[in-house]
Amino acid sequence: MAEDHRIPVGVLGATGAVGQRFAQLLADHPWFEITALAASERSAGHRYGDICQWVIPGDPPTTVRDLIVRPLTPDLPAKIVFSAVPSDVAREIEPQFAQASYLVCSNASAFRNGDDIPLLIPELNADHHTMIARQREQRGWPGLIVTSPNCTITGVAMALKPLDDAFGVRQVFMTSMQAISGAGYPGVSAMDITDNVIPYIAGEEEKFQQELAKLLGHVSGGVLTPAGLTLSAHANRVPVLDGHTVSLSVGFERHPTPEEALEVLRAYRPPEVCAGLVSSPATLIRVRTETDRPQPRRDRDATGGMAVSIGRVRPCPILDLRMTTVVHNTLRGAASGAILNAELLVAAGYAEA
Amino acid sequence: MAEDHRIPVGVLGATGAVGQRFAQLLADHPWFEITALAASERSAGHRYGDICQWVIPGDPPTTVRDLIVRPLTPDLPAKIVFSAVPSDVAREIEPQFAQASYLVCSNASAFRNGDDIPLLIPELNADHHTMIARQREQRGWPGLIVTSPNCTITGVAMALKPLDDAFGVRQVFMTSMQAISGAGYPGVSAMDITDNVIPYIAGEEEKFQQELAKLLGHVSGGVLTPAGLTLSAHANRVPVLDGHTVSLSVGFERHPTPEEALEVLRAYRPPEVCAGLVSSPATLIRVRTETDRPQPRRDRDATGGMAVSIGRVRPCPILDLRMTTVVHNTLRGAASGAILNAELLVAAGYAEA
Amino acid sequence: MAEDHRIPVGVLGATGAVGQRFAQLLADHPWFEITALAASERSAGHRYGDICQWVIPGDPPTTVRDLIVRPLTPDLPAKIVFSAVPSDVAREIEPQFAQASYLVCSNASAFRNGDDIPLLIPELNADHHTMIARQREQRGWPGLIVTSPNCTITGVAMALKPLDDAFGVRQVFMTSMQAISGAGYPGVSAMDITDNVIPYIAGEEEKFQQELAKLLGHVSGGVLTPAGLTLSAHANRVPVLDGHTVSLSVGFERHPTPEEALEVLRAYRPPEVCAGLVSSPATLIRVRTETDRPQPRRDRDATGGMAVSIGRVRPCPILDLRMTTVVHNTLRGAASGAILNAELLVAAGYAEA
Amino acid sequence: MAEDHRIPVGVLGATGAVGQRFAQLLADHPWFEITALAASERSAGHRYGDICQWVIPGDPPTTVRDLIVRPLTPDLPAKIVFSAVPSDVAREIEPQFAQASYLVCSNASAFRNGDDIPLLIPELNADHHTMIARQREQRGWPGLIVTSPNCTITGVAMALKPLDDAFGVRQVFMTSMQAISGAGYPGVSAMDITDNVIPYIAGEEEKFQQELAKLLGHVSGGVLTPAGLTLSAHANRVPVLDGHTVSLSVGFERHPTPEEALEVLRAYRPPEVCAGLVSSPATLIRVRTETDRPQPRRDRDATGGMAVSIGRVRPCPILDLRMTTVVHNTLRGAASGAILNAELLVAAGYAEA
Repeated sequence: MAEDHRIPVGVLGATGAVGQRFAQLLADHPWFEITALAASERSAGHRYGDICQWVIPGDPPTTVRDLIVRPLTPDLPAKIVFSAVPSDVAREIEPQFAQASYLVCSNASAFRNGDDIPLLIPELNADHHTMIARQREQRGWPGLIVTSPNCTITGVAMALKPLDDAFGVRQVFMTSMQAISGAGYPGVSAMDITDNVIPYIAGEEEKFQQELAKLLGHVSGGVLTPAGLTLSAHANRVPVLDGHTVSLSVGFERHPTPEEALEVLRAYRPPEVCAGLVSSPATLIRVRTETDRPQPRRDRDATGGMAVSIGRVRPCPILDLRMTTVVHNTLRGAASGAILNAELLVAAGYAEA
Repeated sequence: MAEDHRIPVGVLGATGAVGQRFAQLLADHPWFEITALAASERSAGHRYGDICQWVIPGDPPTTVRDLIVRPLTPDLPAKIVFSAVPSDVAREIEPQFAQASYLVCSNASAFRNGDDIPLLIPELNADHHTMIARQREQRGWPGLIVTSPNCTITGVAMALKPLDDAFGVRQVFMTSMQAISGAGYPGVSAMDITDNVIPYIAGEEEKFQQELAKLLGHVSGGVLTPAGLTLSAHANRVPVLDGHTVSLSVGFERHPTPEEALEVLRAYRPPEVCAGLVSSPATLIRVRTETDRPQPRRDRDATGGMAVSIGRVRPCPILDLRMTTVVHNTLRGAASGAILNAELLVAAGYAEA
Repeated sequence: MAEDHRIPVGVLGATGAVGQRFAQLLADHPWFEITALAASERSAGHRYGDICQWVIPGDPPTTVRDLIVRPLTPDLPAKIVFSAVPSDVAREIEPQFAQASYLVCSNASAFRNGDDIPLLIPELNADHHTMIARQREQRGWPGLIVTSPNCTITGVAMALKPLDDAFGVRQVFMTSMQAISGAGYPGVSAMDITDNVIPYIAGEEEKFQQELAKLLGHVSGGVLTPAGLTLSAHANRVPVLDGHTVSLSVGFERHPTPEEALEVLRAYRPPEVCAGLVSSPATLIRVRTETDRPQPRRDRDATGGMAVSIGRVRPCPILDLRMTTVVHNTLRGAASGAILNAELLVAAGYAEA
Repeated sequence: MAEDHRIPVGVLGATGAVGQRFAQLLADHPWFEITALAASERSAGHRYGDICQWVIPGDPPTTVRDLIVRPLTPDLPAKIVFSAVPSDVAREIEPQFAQASYLVCSNASAFRNGDDIPLLIPELNADHHTMIARQREQRGWPGLIVTSPNCTITGVAMALKPLDDAFGVRQVFMTSMQAISGAGYPGVSAMDITDNVIPYIAGEEEKFQQELAKLLGHVSGGVLTPAGLTLSAHANRVPVLDGHTVSLSVGFERHPTPEEALEVLRAYRPPEVCAGLVSSPATLIRVRTETDRPQPRRDRDATGGMAVSIGRVRPCPILDLRMTTVVHNTLRGAASGAILNAELLVAAGYAEA
């Protein structure tokens, strides 16, 4: 794709923490060109560089600083829109954009569970995009909606997909130690998390079971059959800026040894289409063999924040294997993940119509 | 017990972080009087206030500041000694002290697994002191050794004892988020734990199964039968100063509902002897019903750091119940726990001989 | 004062972080009895224990949990009210309470600079209460308003008062490293302060000069003459929960050596009236001689959070002396300070009318 | 310089935190090729990837992982050596390397104050390399030693150089809030710095005056005349991983307004030779105009960690101006700074002999 034919894209919810990540990541994207930043009425009409309190690392890209923020109405000069609005807003406006022919790549949870809405991690389930035909048929949309999963389950799914293919995941115990950036900005009060752990994140544990089953499920004729697994989750917030860490115990249909699991993790190859997607990392799964890795601060940025790091693979006295995963929650787990989904849509021809 | 008849006690390893806690807690103890502080050769011969770099809150008690530190030899002017030495040192010197008639209350792990060595949390298993008769018989010691459990499993055992009595604990998944003070001083480098989680603590996971089974076991005729449970553990270090948090999923022989579990937790009454022990808290088990408690910073100091706080009791999709516990690792989980053991020994008559 | 004659007191802004401290500290106060908790319309009418999200250590005192929160109108069943409302609200309602005969002990900044409003730290300037006569005369209030200073300058003033008396403070360079609790709740976002320093706190530097000059000023005939000093301040927020640390360089009229300064600091005796105030600590100024103290976490709680800790007193290459101070910002620097002011009012007879 | 003619370089003290940074930064350097990693006897003889516990972000570069660590003796196959050894070791071995013809670029403090040893920040004082001729003459070394300044004063000097040129710096008050990485690894105990500030760093305040005067001094005929300024410093450690923040008040001979200072800071141009040095950033001085910047976490990595960020430039009630600076202490303030010095030596022809 030549740079002078970049596809015009917009960001919905551009002033929030995830919206800022979209702006930052898209500023230099070889396939996409930011042509519209949209946000709530309060921000609309203002210069992005003036209205947006920049909270992520680095400075606002010069290419977007001067854009005038638009309202969240489906008349943006763009083909694809990335949605970083709150779920209640997403529930209302994302269908409007799909109805108005936009390809909506959403980071919100509003439509993740729809049975005709793909929940995508391209390296795991690129073929789930085939649900879109049914979505368009059922809903009468010329556009479409695809969604990215919850940031915590993203890392778990990336670790478990190769193991599920090889051994059949049946039971998953997971305790998450989630970074504060997962709550957005201003998000978590420093009065709550300094020198502390908060053993609860609203709505989080409920999402894990449903999203993991969908991510690892199979699509045939545009219809999804979720994976048959049971998940028990404990979600905790810890004083870490970025990077969600998960302690996992997993039971399998065919009971692998740690060595067999490591071999499968190292050998995993994403679907062929991913090789052509610019945001998909060279190494998707980083296997760490040190006794004390992965760690969020030391592993979150590996391969541009797009890989999952797995370590401490060892036997479990109750199920089969114990292990620890780390994934970058605002890159792979949010903005970069949604951009990768858009790249998949482009590669699969949806942007051409 | 009149104050003018306080029992002379010593601290082994008095200059370390746990040793300092012993000195602080014993300074005002109504039954005990610190008469000896012992430490390694490097410190021996120096004034405690001069040689000891105080790392815990508060200042060194005036009553011990002027004591001259003694070497770790069994000729201290004391009846009871509290041991806070490293395990390899404990393995060597604790038997020497028991041989020399001292009552050794150890916080080290060296002898915890001995089949004639009580591993005590008086409110759970005060009767385990009856193992001492066999210990003395087998080892020919005029003194004795009793031990305190690992600081992490302490909170878990306190939460599970009432539930085990009522419903029979069979399987335990536990993910710990342990405070940095658990590693002593200087312990964890700030370069390792700042903005980070370390998913590994050397030797920790191995201890949990064995110690929990012993703590919840039954002693008859001085012989211990461990509890028949299976445990799977994930030990993590988090950037929290004090207070170990554990996410627990538990399977029971008789499958309780959360409500039944809460009722049992609230109704638990420690063995009668504990009512007379000065360090045993009025409330042993604090049941929290808020959605986001217990939290280490907000719950660790409850009832003088001697209670366990339990919350988020809810069903588990795989086993029976999920819950979260918090306990103060250097108080209940270390120094205060060992002092309570000494109080039990006094109440049971061992200090009279 | 007999307990059965405790003075009824109320808290304005009872649901915020400082309001909670008031409720906690007053629950066991020998002179005062909480009879009214007032807050904004949103909270009024609800049970305190239900509406108040408790964010400070410990649990809500049982004595106040069942009180029904009242609106911020001057019809509370109380003699003294402690004000922890935001400054814009204080500006409006505190005069209404003074007009309605209440003794208002305010922690807000709204009236601190009034030339007939005492800004009190009793151990430094108890006699400043003599400004009240003029206040009543000028404003026609049967009640009164007294104020507590900014939490950061409080510690600085406590350190400098003895030195000012002895040597005459002329110039003050101060760099504060302020705790996050100084911003209230939710206050500082964890996204801003984790692994970070924020070199700015809105409005803070401006207050220091004016308040320090007033605190160290002299009152004669009810008229205040501010101290003649010049102050240059740098206010920073650091990732510390409680306890404001200040690096100070000070120039004096009579140039003391560090030894002379230490002698004066150690010899300082508060005005006689303070000996009878229950919240005034036995030791007001803790001189630390270790090379690396005071430190906020290790020194903030000294003497109930009511002392200032001073250390590193050493020559300054430009002015006379360098030193470091630590004070507990939400105890001495906020709620406890205002309670102490109320005790002074009681001791001076204002509560009798 | 063609890549196939890269200059062979070695690292002394390669296994420590700064040594690891050298290895990481030199792995892809266009002018230099790492041919030797040297460390203490304990490490010598082992494969670098095996013996080195990697503590900085990222993984050990593949190009150095297989090198066998050598002892610290001056027989390394290299032309330039970067020294990251402790100062006492540096004092002994750096002259041995200079004697053996190596160009020693030292990050240690041992020789910084030598009157024939350049203390270099090339963008400020590149011409100070002319001290080397006298160094060689006096000491009889065929090689040479150049040094990098203390990591904290580095940022201060970068901010003050343009202002000194324009207005003449006379007095400097500085309060540092230094990152924990400044103390190396394991360095600061998490027990000391969690939720805390340590108002003391051994030896630090003493270095600032001497090094700043030398950095801003003038060299003529190989002889340095230090700048005539007086400095008063308060060094503090704060819970920040990387990035030293300094609050500065500065007095000048010609009293600039904030606007005049900002103009000079923005207009500063480094000596011409720097334009050709690969590690010198495009923007040396980043002027921040937001009210709350610079901040260590958000500004430390700007321009590869090689720029200083300056903000909050405002009047000072006592001296002339107040301001805040942030610099990356382990990049510009340590490893990258020393590499830049080596580039200057190459550009000035010292590597050709």
